[in-house]
This record gives sequence, structure tokens and C-alpha cells, in this order.
Amino acid sequence: MYYLGVDLGGTNIAVGLVNEKGELLHKESIPTIRERNYEEILKDLANLCIKIIKDNNLEVKDIESIGVGSPGTCDSKEGVIVYSNNIAFENTPLRKEIQKYIDLPVFLENDANCAALGESVRGAAYGYKDSITITLGTGIGGGVLINGKILSGAFFGGGELGHHVIVSGGEQCTCGRKGCWEAYASATALIRDTKIAALRYPLSKISEEVNGDFNLISAKTVFDVAEKGDKVATEVIDKYLSYIAEGVANMLNIFQPEIIVIGGGVCAQGEKILLPIEAHVKKLSYGGELKTKMAIAKLGNDAGIIGAAMLGLN
Amino acid sequence: MYYLGVDLGGTNIAVGLVNEKGELLHKESIPTIRERNYEEILKDLANLCIKIIKDNNLEVKDIESIGVGSPGTCDSKEGVIVYSNNIAFENTPLRKEIQKYIDLPVFLENDANCAALGESVRGAAYGYKDSITITLGTGIGGGVLINGKILSGAFFGGGELGHHVIVSGGEQCTCGRKGCWEAYASATALIRDTKIAALRYPLSKISEEVNGDFNLISAKTVFDVAEKGDKVATEVIDKYLSYIAEGVANMLNIFQPEIIVIGGGVCAQGEKILLPIEAHVKKLSYGGELKTKMAIAKLGNDAGIIGAAMLGLN
Repeated sequence: MYYLGVDLGGTNIAVGLVNEKGELLHKESIPTIRERNYEEILKDLANLCIKIIKDNNLEVKDIESIGVGSPGTCDSKEGVIVYSNNIAFENTPLRKEIQKYIDLPVFLENDANCAALGESVRGAAYGYKDSITITLGTGIGGGVLINGKILSGAFFGGGELGHHVIVSGGEQCTCGRKGCWEAYASATALIRDTKIAALRYPLSKISEEVNGDFNLISAKTVFDVAEKGDKVATEVIDKYLSYIAEGVANMLNIFQPEIIVIGGGVCAQGEKILLPIEAHVKKLSYGGELKTKMAIAKLGNDAGIIGAAMLGLN
Repeated sequence: MYYLGVDLGGTNIAVGLVNEKGELLHKESIPTIRERNYEEILKDLANLCIKIIKDNNLEVKDIESIGVGSPGTCDSKEGVIVYSNNIAFENTPLRKEIQKYIDLPVFLENDANCAALGESVRGAAYGYKDSITITLGTGIGGGVLINGKILSGAFFGGGELGHHVIVSGGEQCTCGRKGCWEAYASATALIRDTKIAALRYPLSKISEEVNGDFNLISAKTVFDVAEKGDKVATEVIDKYLSYIAEGVANMLNIFQPEIIVIGGGVCAQGEKILLPIEAHVKKLSYGGELKTKMAIAKLGNDAGIIGAAMLGLN
């Protein structure tokens, strides 16, 4: 039996064909063109599903279900996207709309939760029942699995790990609060802090690295500059990793999962960030003992597709 | 059928007879005398259980199980208190020890988790499957119920809600970290901040209230002084309630339970603290919308006994 998994993003809609082991057999994507109304977007989504079924010489009856991971608050029971500021969805009846075109069960879940499920099915959290996957990107996405089940909250707004305050009254967060973990440990925060450091320490090599064009500063920049021996860049990274660790240590005291997986673009740095984060977290742990394993995500963007597909099994 | 619930505290051991509805029919307590070795303490505990069975004209076969709530990390699977700094227990085989004296199933769980279960069975969280009960006392105890089940973490160290940092690098916490919620929102923190305010503002009426004897300052003092119109006291309370709200808002974004119950001595203030906390939390909530209900705990110290007894049903 096969499953279709959809990563419904602000830029692209990616659909994958997945088998019951969570193996991604085929994937394709189309632009979301998010300015359109939801009917048009979801019609394209459904048609891409139909195309993939055909291209793989399958029929609708060979497919168990379609799972969709979407940004925002998703009512997984009703199959309705309650709210997403990434795509202008509000009370969007996703399940009903997709089923206009294709007669299959449709599951819906928040995209960060899907990524967590994907990592647990075939990625870094494989084999663990209690896991947390955090994705350090534009924001911080978080997905919590307890005994293999997604924690989505009583009203589908739980698992928003990036929006817990670690610095009361601190940096402004997009959610309206001040000092959220996301405002310190997302890639966006790292870029902001890299720029601030470049302004404060003009002799650092950060500015030189981008020929003085701050628009070119990415999350990678500060790592490249540190590699060249720049002390300011090293300090920015140290501070950044300590903020990641502060939030991770909070998650350990709150959930104590078997494993915490760190994903997102920043993770291209691999052990270079994992080891210092782990060392920090260990220092912050009660008695200096760290029972929870820590790992870098394995599946990249495929995690969301695989996880969405596996909603049919979850 | 009946259940015995035990609240094994640093000062007293309280045992209650509870029916299957969670009604507390009879309770009795004895001093813990925690300097003793665990064998003596648990022998007393078992004997009190036997006494209560007899005093109620029951027999051991009328009792379904004994549930024990203990401070510290409790391996509920093995029935072993892994570590508690409140009573000097370390790898204490509680279940085995109690069963030397009384042939019944023995369940063990962290005391804050028992209090949460108690509030959900007969208290403020009655009727809700997803609830969090926080107890503001010497520290902050937290218990999380998801779909009616206690969240205890993969290695029985989860649910330590008081030890999530809300002010990175802030006040020293007993756990070793700096800036934990407990270091800002426990009764201990309130007493510290009341004393600091009295020192900084000698014209405030705080010092007068205790005739200059700082040892007499309790969590209640600042509320009594504020009642008399003292501005400094009012500011201490406002700040304190905002810290409670900061942590509560974090819990909402992380778990989004149906209800959050606030317990502990400070809650004697009732709506006087609940309403401002609720208003604060609402302001901190995404879109200013608060779906989760908030309430003051109903069962006081009985919550732990009732919850422990109900471990046999959970």
C-alpha cells in the first residue's frame, strides 16, 4: 500500500509517494503562488496528487490516504486550516476541498509536527517513542511525539516550542511577545546578531566577507568567517549556540524525551554545532547528567513529506 | 472497592482512604522524621496503611492498591524512588519495601504529578482530559496530564515545569541553572522580592508590618500590606504575577491544555491573583485569544493523596 504526503509551503507545494515503511519513492513540486484563493491552490495540489499516482502506474485504490502538512494552526480532526499567516488561509476546509477531486481519506497536521513524525519514522529519531524535533529556520518549528503520538494541544495550537519566552522582556518576537526562544535561536535571529556584531565591531571580518553588503549576510556567513579565525564571529556563534541550548534544556526539563533532533538550515554545520550545544545542555542539566540523546536531523525537507504521508499510519 | 493514597512528604506522611470516585473518606498523618533510614520510614508508612484499613472495618482484600506520591524522581515502572533531595532517598525500593508488610499492588509517582491527577479526578480540572496543575510553593511543582495520562518523561524526570528558564542568566535557581521560572514565581521568590523591596524602599509599610523582623515576612505579607494601600507592595505583587503569567503563557504555547490549575499557598488569594494572571496571559497569547481555561486549585493538600490513590485507576 502507498501513501501520499504533501508539504504545503508558502513557496512550493511538494508531494511525495511513500510506502508503508516511510520510504520516499517519488516526489514532485509546483509553485504555491500563494496570492491565489484557496480553491485554486488546493485544486493544483489535488491534481499533482493525481498526476503522481498516474506517473507511477498506480490507481487511486492503491493509495491509503493523503496527508498534508501545513504551516499554522491545523484542526486535524475536521481537516481545516484554522489560521496560517504564511499562506492567507483562515478556516480553510482543506479536506473537503481536496476530496472534491480525489476520493481518499485526507489527513492534516501542522508542518513542524509532520517533520517530527518524519524524523521518527525514517530519520534521526527512528526507534524512539518519545522525541522532539526542532527546526531552526526563519522561525523555530517544534514537533513533540509522546509515545509515538503527535502532541497538538487541546485546540490544535500546542507544540509551539519556539514561542516560549527564555528572556522575559527581551527581543521582540513576531508572535507579539518579547524574548521568545525563536527570537534568539532561529536562523533569523542569528542573521540579526551577525549584522549587529558587524556594526559594533567594524574590524571583524564579517563585513568584509559580504563586501560590505549586509543583504548578503546569511546564517552561514558567521560560520564561514569564524572558520577564518575571526573572534567576533566565534563569539556570535557561541552566544547563539548557548541560546539554542537554553531552550533545549527547557524542553528536557519539561518533556524529558528519549531524543531531541535539531533540524533546519543551520544544521548543515553538523557536529560543529551539535557537540557544543550538547556540552552546554549537559552543563544545564540537573546533576550534569544528560539522559536524553541529541542528534542532527537526517531527512532535510523530506521529513515534512514523509511525516505527512505517515499521518495515515499515526 | 477502595484505594489508599499516600503523600510522602519531608515533614509528614499522610495516608488517605479513597473510593473509586476519588472521594477522600478518611485521612491520617504521622511525622516522617526524615533523618531515619528508608526502611524505618517506609515501615511506618505501611503500618499507617494497615491501621487505616482496620480503623475503617475493612480488610486488605477490600483495597485495590496503594499509591504513593513522593518528591523527586520516581521510577513508576519499578516502584523505586531514584532520587529525592527533600528526603534522603536514592534508589529506594519503595514498592518492594512496602510489600514486605502489606500484600497489595503499590504504585509510585512524583508528588506534583499526583496533585495534578487529584485535581483532575475531583478538583478544579475535573472533566478535562488535558490539564496542567502548577503548585506555587517552596518551589514550583508541575503536573501535566495529556489525554488523562501523566507526562512523566522517558526517564521519569519530565514535567519539571518550574525548571524552565524564563530569564536567561537571571536569578540563581536551586537546580543549578539561572533564571528558572521557579526562581521568579515560587512563594520563595515572592518572599525574597518582598524583602528586597523592603530594603530598597524603607518608607514602604512592608517592614512595619513585621515590626522590622524580616524573618516574619511570608508570602502573605506583601498581599496584606498592599491591601492597606502600599504602592511598593502592589508593585511587588504586579511583577510577581507577571512572572507567573510569563511561565503560564509558555506552557500554553507548548502544551495548550484545556485548563491550567494554579495551586499552592499563594492561591489562598483566590481571584485576587487569578484574574490579573489571566489578564496578563491573555495579553501574551497569540492574537490575544485565550482558549485554555484557568482556575485556582480546589483540593489543597488533599490533591496529592487523592491523586496518589487514583494511580491505581490511571
